[in-house]
Amino acid sequence: MKFIRMQNLTTDIIYEPIKDDLIRVDKVLKDVAQIDFPFLVDLLDHIIDAGGKRVRPAVTILASNFHPHETHAIEIMGAAVELLHIATLVHDDTIDDSNLRRGKETISSIWGRNIAVLVGDYIFASSARHVCDTGNVKVIKRFSETIMELSRGELQEISEAYSSNQSMESYLERIYKKTGSLFMTAGESGAVLSGASESFCQALKLYGYNIGMAFQIVDDILDLNGDQLEIGKPIGNDLAHGIITLPAILLVEKYPRDNPVIKLMQDPKNTHHLDQSVQMIRNSSIIRDSYSIAESYCNHALNQLKILPDIPSRKSLEHLVEYVVKRRN
Amino acid sequence: MKFIRMQNLTTDIIYEPIKDDLIRVDKVLKDVAQIDFPFLVDLLDHIIDAGGKRVRPAVTILASNFHPHETHAIEIMGAAVELLHIATLVHDDTIDDSNLRRGKETISSIWGRNIAVLVGDYIFASSARHVCDTGNVKVIKRFSETIMELSRGELQEISEAYSSNQSMESYLERIYKKTGSLFMTAGESGAVLSGASESFCQALKLYGYNIGMAFQIVDDILDLNGDQLEIGKPIGNDLAHGIITLPAILLVEKYPRDNPVIKLMQDPKNTHHLDQSVQMIRNSSIIRDSYSIAESYCNHALNQLKILPDIPSRKSLEHLVEYVVKRRN
Repeated sequence: MKFIRMQNLTTDIIYEPIKDDLIRVDKVLKDVAQIDFPFLVDLLDHIIDAGGKRVRPAVTILASNFHPHETHAIEIMGAAVELLHIATLVHDDTIDDSNLRRGKETISSIWGRNIAVLVGDYIFASSARHVCDTGNVKVIKRFSETIMELSRGELQEISEAYSSNQSMESYLERIYKKTGSLFMTAGESGAVLSGASESFCQALKLYGYNIGMAFQIVDDILDLNGDQLEIGKPIGNDLAHGIITLPAILLVEKYPRDNPVIKLMQDPKNTHHLDQSVQMIRNSSIIRDSYSIAESYCNHALNQLKILPDIPSRKSLEHLVEYVVKRRN
Repeated sequence: MKFIRMQNLTTDIIYEPIKDDLIRVDKVLKDVAQIDFPFLVDLLDHIIDAGGKRVRPAVTILASNFHPHETHAIEIMGAAVELLHIATLVHDDTIDDSNLRRGKETISSIWGRNIAVLVGDYIFASSARHVCDTGNVKVIKRFSETIMELSRGELQEISEAYSSNQSMESYLERIYKKTGSLFMTAGESGAVLSGASESFCQALKLYGYNIGMAFQIVDDILDLNGDQLEIGKPIGNDLAHGIITLPAILLVEKYPRDNPVIKLMQDPKNTHHLDQSVQMIRNSSIIRDSYSIAESYCNHALNQLKILPDIPSRKSLEHLVEYVVKRRN
């Protein structure tokens, strides 16, 4: 990659040009927790505050900075993309029966699955409500398509679970729906709402798509190659739930016979197969190969930025790409 | 009530002027089940076909018939309101752990709760997608408010569960969010999308609100006074889940001391308290009193229709009010 390599690249540095905007997004998010039912206020605060890195709202805000605009609609939109993301996490954790998310206890583990379903619905509903407040039909439509894609992605994941016979193509389709689509919407909506030109909007949409794909691939790598304390959940969590991601697909491709991933999918409770899958992935070139695929998406993302003026927000978008690959959690 | 009393009033008779439109709505609904994951097609068909009376789409279509219009947006809207209704049923059944809905097995009982959460999300997403296809910002915004209200209603229900100290006011607020809001949107959106005048839109919005309130009150009466076979679920199901509805509120008001409802809320597994609550409600004037409250909403609904021309669709809206009160399930 042709990154301007930065040491200790943190989101604080990347978000510097938009830190006030992100504070305003957080204010909008905090208002979602101000609900009439006292027992829910803490609960919603817990979810909304759960150490999220706000990458999606950051993309929306940065993408809006290539054309002069009123900031209100952008903040609302930034909150909407984050809320949609949070809603899917709440339902995901409920379905997986996960106890931890980023090292914190999940809603379903503290308050039970019923509350988690309804709270997920409420956050989901809030996201739709916020995007409608932008009043922009193109953005609202794109957002509703994203909601559909996210939902189809979840269903695809559950329908393909515990099947070791998965193609790269269906994996890429699934991560597009699960993550690429919302990042694409984050980038495109920021640009569209700012009133940027068609070519800028297209570039920022494709930037979003590509950084989203890279983001999910790196997430999937960290699930197998990360540090349990840093990622805040057990290593191999996806495989343990029958979800085959890029490294596992590459392992099956590379060793089609006597493969622990294939055995694990046939015998999902067998921790020996799980440990062996993780070890084989870690001890082969697969992690490097997976990063190469993520980096090719990163390069596509960076290429999209070339037509944009070289302002601080463009630098941040570039650094964000680097951050996405380098992060440890 | 000043109904033109009809014998054997069925939805078939009421829907006569709009039967072709409802077939087209059903076609749109059936398309939602055409998804790429084979195992879901039957499941979605099962839900979408589950003997629903399509009351909400009927209100939308009937409300659109007071102004000449293209039918496409109305059908899409009719499908959207029904999809939103179905999505909430799927999540409700998941939370209640209900095995039966209208005498049919629920998604969560056949396919498990995880699938039910995701399928509910998918249907929810489809409803948002469809309403966006109408392209009408006012209708889209109103729909997003309804999604929020539905969700707040669910949270209110769970937050007030197992508390016998409930006011009529909070009950009415809860059933507005749970049912009144979507009926109001069904009526208003049909009128708005047809291009009807502001006064017609307002009348049909209030018609929707009032018939929706009556509908929920009658549902709550049938839960306690219906026939188990006709309503397709156990009698006193709400009380058994700690949900206090109108008849129970009236019973607590009437007999504040030594009341089985109060005892049941303190000891929710005690079937004796449940049976006694049901019997006391059935053997008092409470069922009649509850119907009187439903009928006052019905009268408000009928009054709204007076400014509309006396066409077959108005007759159907009148008959629908009568049907809502007279129905046995």
